[in-house]
Parts: sequence; C-alpha cells; structure tokens
Amino acid sequence: MGITTKRTFRVKSIDVKFPQPIVIINEDDAREFGIASGNVVLATIGDVYHSLIVMTSKTLAQRSECVFPLELMSKLGISEGDVIGLRLIGLPQSIYALKKRLKGEKLTEGEFLALIRDVVAGMYGEAEIAAFLVSQLYNPLSDNELSHLIKAMVETGVKVKFEETVYDIHSIGGVPGNSKVALISVPIVAAAGLLIPKTSSRAITSPAGTADTMEVLARVDLAVDEIVEIARKVKGTLAWGGRLNLAPADDIFVSIERKLAIDPEQQMVASILSKKLAMGVERLVVDIPVGRGTKVQELKDAESLASIFIKQAGLLNIAIKIAITYGGQPIGTSVGPALEAREALRTHIEKRGSRSLIDKAIMLAGLIIEMSGRAHPGTGVEVARDIFLSGKAYEKFKQIIEAQGGNPNTKPEDIPVGKYTFTLKSPTEGAVTYIDNTAIALIARACGAPYDKGAGVEFHAKVGYRVNRGDPLITIYSNSETRLDDALVLLREHQPIVVEGMLVKTLP
Amino acid sequence: MGITTKRTFRVKSIDVKFPQPIVIINEDDAREFGIASGNVVLATIGDVYHSLIVMTSKTLAQRSECVFPLELMSKLGISEGDVIGLRLIGLPQSIYALKKRLKGEKLTEGEFLALIRDVVAGMYGEAEIAAFLVSQLYNPLSDNELSHLIKAMVETGVKVKFEETVYDIHSIGGVPGNSKVALISVPIVAAAGLLIPKTSSRAITSPAGTADTMEVLARVDLAVDEIVEIARKVKGTLAWGGRLNLAPADDIFVSIERKLAIDPEQQMVASILSKKLAMGVERLVVDIPVGRGTKVQELKDAESLASIFIKQAGLLNIAIKIAITYGGQPIGTSVGPALEAREALRTHIEKRGSRSLIDKAIMLAGLIIEMSGRAHPGTGVEVARDIFLSGKAYEKFKQIIEAQGGNPNTKPEDIPVGKYTFTLKSPTEGAVTYIDNTAIALIARACGAPYDKGAGVEFHAKVGYRVNRGDPLITIYSNSETRLDDALVLLREHQPIVVEGMLVKTLP
Repeated sequence: MGITTKRTFRVKSIDVKFPQPIVIINEDDAREFGIASGNVVLATIGDVYHSLIVMTSKTLAQRSECVFPLELMSKLGISEGDVIGLRLIGLPQSIYALKKRLKGEKLTEGEFLALIRDVVAGMYGEAEIAAFLVSQLYNPLSDNELSHLIKAMVETGVKVKFEETVYDIHSIGGVPGNSKVALISVPIVAAAGLLIPKTSSRAITSPAGTADTMEVLARVDLAVDEIVEIARKVKGTLAWGGRLNLAPADDIFVSIERKLAIDPEQQMVASILSKKLAMGVERLVVDIPVGRGTKVQELKDAESLASIFIKQAGLLNIAIKIAITYGGQPIGTSVGPALEAREALRTHIEKRGSRSLIDKAIMLAGLIIEMSGRAHPGTGVEVARDIFLSGKAYEKFKQIIEAQGGNPNTKPEDIPVGKYTFTLKSPTEGAVTYIDNTAIALIARACGAPYDKGAGVEFHAKVGYRVNRGDPLITIYSNSETRLDDALVLLREHQPIVVEGMLVKTLP
Repeated sequence: MGITTKRTFRVKSIDVKFPQPIVIINEDDAREFGIASGNVVLATIGDVYHSLIVMTSKTLAQRSECVFPLELMSKLGISEGDVIGLRLIGLPQSIYALKKRLKGEKLTEGEFLALIRDVVAGMYGEAEIAAFLVSQLYNPLSDNELSHLIKAMVETGVKVKFEETVYDIHSIGGVPGNSKVALISVPIVAAAGLLIPKTSSRAITSPAGTADTMEVLARVDLAVDEIVEIARKVKGTLAWGGRLNLAPADDIFVSIERKLAIDPEQQMVASILSKKLAMGVERLVVDIPVGRGTKVQELKDAESLASIFIKQAGLLNIAIKIAITYGGQPIGTSVGPALEAREALRTHIEKRGSRSLIDKAIMLAGLIIEMSGRAHPGTGVEVARDIFLSGKAYEKFKQIIEAQGGNPNTKPEDIPVGKYTFTLKSPTEGAVTYIDNTAIALIARACGAPYDKGAGVEFHAKVGYRVNRGDPLITIYSNSETRLDDALVLLREHQPIVVEGMLVKTLP
C-alpha cells in the first residue's frame, strides 16, 4: 500500500505492440528496485502520473533503461532519451471501496470518485472491474449510488462545453437497420435551430453503428474542437465518440461486460448518461426498441429500464423523454453501412420511403423539438414532418456532410455497395409473417459488415407485405465471394424471413 | 467461436520475463492470420494444447517466427528452431456455463468440468474467473454443485495413487506460530503406522507456512514420485504442494481471490478438499482456529464452515473430523520459519514446551489415530501423547528429515536465526492480557519473514503470564538492520502485547 522509492530511467523505444501499457526494464534494476515481472509502477511524466506494467529482461533493456513500445511513447508524449521517474505502487487506495461494495455496504460519492479515478488510471486489472460489474447483477446500486457513479464517470474524462442548450437523441440500439435513423432525425433537429452535437459508437456486435454508416458519407473521427466548431456553424454533428475520452471508464466497463456477456441495466444507463453529460447534454430523448431479437424483448423490461433513466436524469438535471419503439423487425429496408447510408440519402431526396424509418425519425425529432418549447406538446411530430418534407432537413444534412469533410452532392447511386449479391425469392404465394432480427444481423456480419462498408442485407418485402411465388424477398451484398458463400449457409440455416401462404394444409 | 485456421511458426527465444504466457509474432503475419495484439491462440506442442497471448512486432519477430520467453520455452519443453502450430481461438465453449451461472441457473457436473478444464487450460482471463468467484458471494453453489466443482478441480490436475489408506491433517491457518504444529503432529501420526503424505503451502500473507518452516530442516520441493517413495519408506512427508499440479484450478482461483481480497467459504472448502482428493486422502482432520485476528473470528462462522466441510466430505467419500481450536493468540512461543523450526525441534527433543503447541499437535494427531481404528474413541489423545513422550515421534521426524534430504542430527542451536534483534520489555508489573495476532504477523513480515528464514518474533510471555516491570515480553529477529528498524516502528504503533497492572486508576 502507498508509494515507495522512486527511481529514474532513460526512455528507449521498441517496436512491439502490447495490448496493455507494458514497459521493460533490466532484470538487475528490477531486483534492486524490489519489483517482479508483472508489477505495476507509476510513471511521472511532466506533472502527470501514468500506471505501467513492468516486465524484465537481461538484454532488451540495459541498466537504467526503460523500454517503451512506440505507440505507448506517442500516447504519453515522450521521446527516446527522455528521463522519467518510476515508483512502485501497491494496491490502489480505492480497493477498500471495492471491498465495501463486495461486502454489501453502500459507497459514498467520494468513494465512487476514488474508485473510478483508479479504474481510468489503469490501476485495476480485469478481475477488480469484473467484480464491480458482477456485484451489480446481484446487488443493484441505490439510486443515489448510481448517480454518484455516473458523476464520477463524467468527472474522470473530457467535458465539452457549449454556449447554448445541448439536445440529443439516443437509441439503445439492438434492432438492425436502426443506424440510419439519426441521419434523418439529427438534421431535422438541427434544421429546427437546436444544437445537437451527436456522437455515436461504431458497431460492436451489430452490422452497423451510426458512426459506421455516417462514415460512408463523411469523416466521423472528429476531435472535440472540431465537433464544437461544426456544431457552432451548422448546429449538428454525426461524429464518432470513440476517441474523445468522454467518460472513459465506460469503455473499460463495456470491454469487460462484453467478455462476460453481461449487460447490467444500471450500467447501461450509466454508460449512456455519462457520455451525454460529458457532452453537456441537457435535454435528451432515449429510444428503447422492444421486440423479439432486440436488447429489450418485453415491454415490462423496457418500462423498468425507462424508470431508471427517468430517476437518474432527475438526479443529474437532464430533462428526459423515453420513447419505447417497435423493434420487432428491422428499421427501413436495409442493413449495413453503405446500404443504410444510401437509404437515408434517398429518403432525404425523395421525401418518401420506408414508413418504419421516416415515422421513427420524425417522431424522435418531434419529441425533442417539443422539449425545446419550439413546438407545443403534441405538435412536435408535425413540425418535424414539415422540416423533413420541405427539404430543410436534407439541406441541413448536406451542411453536416460538408462540415465533416464529405461531398454534400453525393447521390444515392454514387455509393458503392457489395459487388457480389444473392437474391432470395419467395418459395410460395402469401404474406411475410416474420423477420428474424438476430438472423439478419448474423447474415449481414457474415457478409462483412461493418468492416466491409458495402456488405449487408436489403429487403424487398417486410412483415405484412403480400408476395407471389418467385418474388424477391431480400438481397444480400458482400465484396468477398467467400463471405457471401458463408452468409448463404447461414441464410439457409436460419430462414430469416418467413412467408406463409393462405392455405395452411389440405386434408386428406 | 470455435477453432479457425492453423499456421506453423519457428520457435525463437528472447530473454524477457513476462508474467503471463506471452509470445511475439511478426506484425505482417498477425495481419494475415487475422489476429491483433492481445489475442489468445492455442499452440499445439506434441499432442498438447497450450493457450498463449500473442503480441506483435516488426523487428523482434521475423516472418514465420514465434518468439518465446526462455522461461516459457523450458516450461513447454520446446527449443530454438522447433516448429509449432498456432490456432486462433474465439471464446471457449464453456463460456455458456459461466453465462448460465451469472443468470442464476444451476450447472451440471459436465458443465463444471468443461468450465474448469478451460480455466486450467488458460482459456479465460481474470475477468471471467473473477465473475465466477464473485457470483459465489451472492449466490452460493448448491451442495451438489459444490461437489461437482471439487471433482472437476481434481480431474483437471495430477492425481496421486497410494497403495494404502491415506490420512491427513489440515489447518485452515490464520493464526501466527501455527506452521510448526504439523512438524509435531505428522511424525506422531506416521509413527503410529498411518500413511500421511502431507503437502503444505508456503506463506502467502502470513509470516510462515508449514512448507517454509520445514524447509529450514530439509528439502520441501519434492516431485510427486519422491513423495510416493518417501511415504512408502517412512509413512510421512512434510512437502511443499506448490508445484505438484494438484487441483491447479485452485491456484488460479486463489490468485484472483487475493486480488479482490475475498475468500468465499465454499471456495475455501473446494480448495482444501480438491487438493486432498488429488493426493488420494480418505481420512482427514481439519483444524479451524477461531479467535480475534484469525481467518474465522466467531464460533458461529466456524460452525458454518465446518458444516460445509462435513456435507462435502460426505458427498466425496472422505471420512472427516473437524477440530475448532482456540486461535486467539499465537501458537507456541515463536513466529517465523527458523524460530518455529527451532521450537518444533526443541519440543521433540525435550518432550516439553509450550502447551498451546504440544496439546494442539497431540489432539489433532489423536483424532486421526482414532479415525484409523488404532485407538478407541476418546483414547486417541493418549496414544498420540505416548508416541510423543516416548521419543518415537522424534525418531520419525528425523527419518522424514533425512528422507527429504536434510540432516537428521540438526540440533535446535544449529539453526541460524536473525542476527539483528530487539527485545521489548514490560513497562509495568502485571499480567499479559492480550496478544494481537494481526500485529504480530505484520511485525514478523516486516522483519523479513518468510523470505528471510531467520526473521520473526519470539515470545517470553503469553496471555495470562505474570510479569514484572522490565521483564522481556518479545524479541524480534531480522537479518536486515533496515527491516528491523521498520519493524520497530510497527511495534511502537501497534502494541502487539498488552500488560495490564493490578491498579487500573487512582482517584482523585
């Protein structure tokens, strides 16, 4: 516990890529220093501390040398030959807060801050973080604890300041085809004169995140000052939030949750609200899609999640509205970055298209416009629809594309999609009765989405459509023939779209 | 999920020490292979799979080279230039069993086996193991589940076979000075003609484990076949169990429990019984010391732990007796490897000494002798005392020392103890009313125990002894003057031994 002797070392580079902040020192130095391979040290670089994992070597590091991987050097802003101090550290002080939590005791605001600060500083391994998250499955945080956690997550990252009220719309996701909704709703909101500097994630387990889809049309890896500048100029952004260091504890939590395939409800709320608070969001609409094959399968679970959002937003001074939306089949007629970007652009230009896409985008935009006071309660949807149909939303979308370094005059037909395709035809006359979200996502990913931007699935029919035998149902796209073949195997195994004829059976 | 393409690589060595099984391959190979720094691969070496963490480099590894730290090469039995196959692996199949557990569902015997097999194969990171352990704090395993877990821990390690019934005595520890008890009880049991191939751990957080103390007199890092051979010849061993690969999952669990400072009751039982089953133990006495500053502070907690032991021993066909013993102050008059080895040897030779040591050793040995049928119920203690007082136990101890490569004629005064000492004297006339186990352990470790074998604490008085002002209370030993100074600071801070005079207060 606590900090012991400090030693100084000369920085030397090595071209290895380590997945963690690992450095190498000489074995004899390590022995004198009293540390073993795998110990954590604090490096003083300028006025800032960074925790590093030390490994030892007889030959890679000479006496008094500390060998850094090149990537780590550039991340820490140090150069060959720099002199840095290393201090051996024991368990971080905040471990006592984790112990308290595991014993079932409540933590204070200060304890959450200490714990999260050490998480962000890299002082904990996966075991401690997993313990913190798993404890929530069994012993939920109190409302006050959850708000302390969220505030701590915000405090330990970058906080962006804007001069006017910040609005945002966030979908918890989980339904294929949803990534393009923001490409319509955000321009509507910005065109209404509201500031909506939206940052989104890339797909993790889905075929496309909003950032992946927007990237087909413009740059999304914007720096914080670019986002501020663009939002000032055109009111809206559609950027990637991944490298902005907003609530960085969340990224650490998410990586462990993924390993364990757990998704604690409270942590989901903390994840979303911390990122929003870090961006200075004051008014927020949260979309919770419900239905088979989405994150939230039952209405009652959506309501439970909504009540946590509402409670926390209240404690954190965010005005919030929750939209529980139908997620039982994909949104719009496409799944995959390029296909969805094309659909969004075509919808803007033609002012018509899939109702599931247009109605959802307009509804979400309408809710936030009502929260701004620029529309009376109950009329937000009409205001949003006018902005969409008048072409002001498309104008705004072009401004955002241009501000983010894209070509505002891109036409839907200019967007390249997968060059290998396969079209599934209806085996019978009847009506589409079911589309399997999970299978569609699996097939689109097998085609190569989101990394292959042109990969994905397009729908010629959706639930309720009447089809004749031989009519096309879906087309799958890929830029790799092998991947298309893999996807075809899944297509046959999973039957992601079901057509049922009027005649069910004949007797005898 | 599942196993993908295999590639072959040429082994190259590097002298780095990594705390995990890390290898380095060329960055371009990694890209072609489809893996990123930090991914886990399965290496095929002969017929055996080992999981390795891959890191990438442009220069340390040439194309088709796989660079191994020297220690890892010798552990895996490979040499420079060998050709090995690597396969990229996804999540281990058994992750579904962990998911079931986190959802609150029961696991089957087969699921525990799959899970523990993957834990032992190194397929899981700390996060997954921490999740498994933390879940037990909130949602205990059922009795059947716990026995499945224990069996799985045994099946996935080395199992030792003896030709006759195997007996053992195990203390869950936690009381200073306890490490020497086995140096008396085990020779008594072996002298009674029972087979007791005892393996012990080294100290982890205490000043001395039985293996550390026995190592003062003989080798303890015996291989399995040496233990079998010695036990056949002299009936008993006092070996270190650390590298025998008995229930290796336990070592992995313990390392994570330590990080999290948790010690789930069921996992403690699993830890002990799995190691015993792996050694073929059929009759077992478990000592649970109770008292301030031990692992189990309250009698009711000891009884709860005892009932888990009894239930599991029943399910696993081990005859068991639990001895809940007084642990409110240190056992005997010394703490630390050399001091305790000296005390044990002196007790054998002189046939007298501290009652807390002699009575405890005789009681534990007596219980196991009763379980063998070689003493009628209630007479085991007398049989054990006879063996001790007759010198047969000392004869047996000398045989064990000799069989383990030590000098059987070592005298207590031959054993070197710390050359720097400090003796604390009583500040007042009165009686010793309290000795603080935790503070004594802390001071002994500050002196350098268990690594400095001669470091530790010796008692001139224990609870209940009457002392005069200026009488010696304890002497602390170290081979390092600096460490002795550190220990003196703790001695002053903690007051580990309390003397209270007859006169408490005068008024006015």
